[in-house]
Amino acid sequence: MIDPGRFLEDLRTLRTFGATGTGVVRPSYSEVDLAARAWLRDRYADAGLKAEIDGVGNVFGRSPNPGPALLIGSHSDTQPTGGWLDGAYGVIVGLEVARAIRESPDTADLAVDAVAWIDEESTYVSCLGSRAFCDLVEPDELVDATGLDGRTLAEAQADAGLSGTSARWDERNYAGFLEAHIEQGSALEASGDLIGVVTAIVGARTMVIRFSGQQNHAGTTPMRLRRDAGMAAVRLGQAIDARFGELTGERTVWTIGDMRFEPGASSIIPGSAQLTLQFRDPDAALLARFTDEVERLAAEMSAATGVDITIEPDGRAIEPVDMDPTLHDALAAAAAETAPDRWTSMPSAAVHDAMFLATRMPAGMIFVPSIGGISHDFAEDTSDADLVRGAQTIADAAVKILRN
Amino acid sequence: MIDPGRFLEDLRTLRTFGATGTGVVRPSYSEVDLAARAWLRDRYADAGLKAEIDGVGNVFGRSPNPGPALLIGSHSDTQPTGGWLDGAYGVIVGLEVARAIRESPDTADLAVDAVAWIDEESTYVSCLGSRAFCDLVEPDELVDATGLDGRTLAEAQADAGLSGTSARWDERNYAGFLEAHIEQGSALEASGDLIGVVTAIVGARTMVIRFSGQQNHAGTTPMRLRRDAGMAAVRLGQAIDARFGELTGERTVWTIGDMRFEPGASSIIPGSAQLTLQFRDPDAALLARFTDEVERLAAEMSAATGVDITIEPDGRAIEPVDMDPTLHDALAAAAAETAPDRWTSMPSAAVHDAMFLATRMPAGMIFVPSIGGISHDFAEDTSDADLVRGAQTIADAAVKILRN
Repeated sequence: MIDPGRFLEDLRTLRTFGATGTGVVRPSYSEVDLAARAWLRDRYADAGLKAEIDGVGNVFGRSPNPGPALLIGSHSDTQPTGGWLDGAYGVIVGLEVARAIRESPDTADLAVDAVAWIDEESTYVSCLGSRAFCDLVEPDELVDATGLDGRTLAEAQADAGLSGTSARWDERNYAGFLEAHIEQGSALEASGDLIGVVTAIVGARTMVIRFSGQQNHAGTTPMRLRRDAGMAAVRLGQAIDARFGELTGERTVWTIGDMRFEPGASSIIPGSAQLTLQFRDPDAALLARFTDEVERLAAEMSAATGVDITIEPDGRAIEPVDMDPTLHDALAAAAAETAPDRWTSMPSAAVHDAMFLATRMPAGMIFVPSIGGISHDFAEDTSDADLVRGAQTIADAAVKILRN
Repeated sequence: MIDPGRFLEDLRTLRTFGATGTGVVRPSYSEVDLAARAWLRDRYADAGLKAEIDGVGNVFGRSPNPGPALLIGSHSDTQPTGGWLDGAYGVIVGLEVARAIRESPDTADLAVDAVAWIDEESTYVSCLGSRAFCDLVEPDELVDATGLDGRTLAEAQADAGLSGTSARWDERNYAGFLEAHIEQGSALEASGDLIGVVTAIVGARTMVIRFSGQQNHAGTTPMRLRRDAGMAAVRLGQAIDARFGELTGERTVWTIGDMRFEPGASSIIPGSAQLTLQFRDPDAALLARFTDEVERLAAEMSAATGVDITIEPDGRAIEPVDMDPTLHDALAAAAAETAPDRWTSMPSAAVHDAMFLATRMPAGMIFVPSIGGISHDFAEDTSDADLVRGAQTIADAAVKILRN
């Protein structure tokens, strides 16, 4: 039902906004991001949708048909040095599915809205567009938000002529939200499946652990008299890794993404240190258990070393979210037709806009394979056949959902 | 025999060159460092010594008496934010002892030379002055040496009107070298001793260990598929600490002074990491054993994690050096008179100019207590009584050495 050629052509046109080598540099509120949003608004209008850029920069193409409407899309902003498909793929799927359903006499009565969220990639505030739409942004998150170019969020929005006030989920009667996305991992490639129907999006905890000891001379200070902040950080990092390995669930991942010592000189015992720990799991109870273990191990390490250790959350806790079972089943039924015996159900290990939409309406997601599992990198890619198959799956599922 | 008032006054005058709060900022080849060297040259001349600033900036005051001469001194440059006594104390001890011995009819026939070495604190090249004097500087060390102000060593020397060529140890017949220094640790304060007679200066190895893995998404990359450079660094750091704790000698110290992850973001598995490891011991065989253990543990960790690990020395290996037993005994005999029952023999855990002099002539050192064990800090201090006692100990030992 969709037009594969037109779909791929629009996807490649969106890529030209910020194209850099094989990748794309299109962070939210940049000149190319705003130009891409204006282009998307025009594409929605060309498709006969009521096109609008809201006050935070989200682009909507609303069906003139009465609801309940199915909202389909993703985000069109990228990482500072991003791939061409992360977000952009789901945006053009939304455009093509809304357009194709309007064009076909069989489905022209159905209400499909398309959307391109802003700032999922956290140039200013993580998932700003979808969270603002869902009324899930706390005012204090906006105050100090500053982009890579030094502008505040308020300045970036003012420069773009935006009011800062988004459209809201409760202004229209929605049947649900669908998002297509690249997997950003290698599970599909490893299993040979072509479509992953998402069951849940994992929750995450990110924390900064700070160590405060006593800076001193690395030669003249005997081991027994040291309060070495760096060594306490190393020992706690290893203890957390070992303990998480014992407690791990099937899908648990944990990462020490950063570690820093001060002053960081070869002949000086570090007086302070910090590490950033993140862990993710679809099970909220396991996330709580891990948090407790980190606190227990930190207290033990502090007692053993005389180094003060504090733990602070880095950003908000992300709670695991289940996708809607009815939408999951509609997507699975569609996948069984577009990819017979080559689709699977799976959790998402990455955050997506659908996590927030799921708190306001039924939400569903699918993944298409990432070549080599690579994302957030210029090398990010997916085959044309897989891209088209995902779009067709969303289109088929949309009709099933709206007809039931 | 020495003049305590004159000694302390000269020490305080030297402090004024670069005085900053209670500390001193007098890095080598800075304007205040060069002014202090001109002042020292004039003090040596006033004391009846043949005063000269050599081509690297070392200041000598040579006795007109024939040798063998006893050379006494330390360095007059400081850390970027240094204390007032580190180096300066031993320089003024050299001035006062050479002066007092010349003045006293009983000792006026003895040959005592005074010296103020340059760049012990490594603004350009660690222990440059004393190592150049001993012909221990490799030409390639000088090529890229650059100071904190961005000047190369050659530029700094040219700005100071210096040739770059130092005086040499073999241009005069030396009986030995004596250095007085603050302890820079708290062993004397803890034991209640007032003089520490140095037996040996510990050797040190410093190495940068680099980890190269695979940068990836911290959510979508399962634990079993990771090659996490950061976690390999944490685990190896902990394994080294644990193993060194089993092998340790009485005086062994080890420090991970720095650790860095790239790219250092909470949601990204580090693709590369590095840590800086330093360990010190007076026993060369134990230093070699530790080096072997680091290499063995790194190979095991690389095999276990799939992360490439390389080990590179950071600067030159510092070999442990014994002080001369005859000079040690002369210093001990003097200390037994200036600090009856309150002196001890001890190794030095820090590098000093005497390490290099010891390769060319008999060398001896004493320590005086550091209040609170603090050094390389504006708060560095020692009581006047302890400062004077150290100077008198060097003077008494000098006479014993030159009379035997």
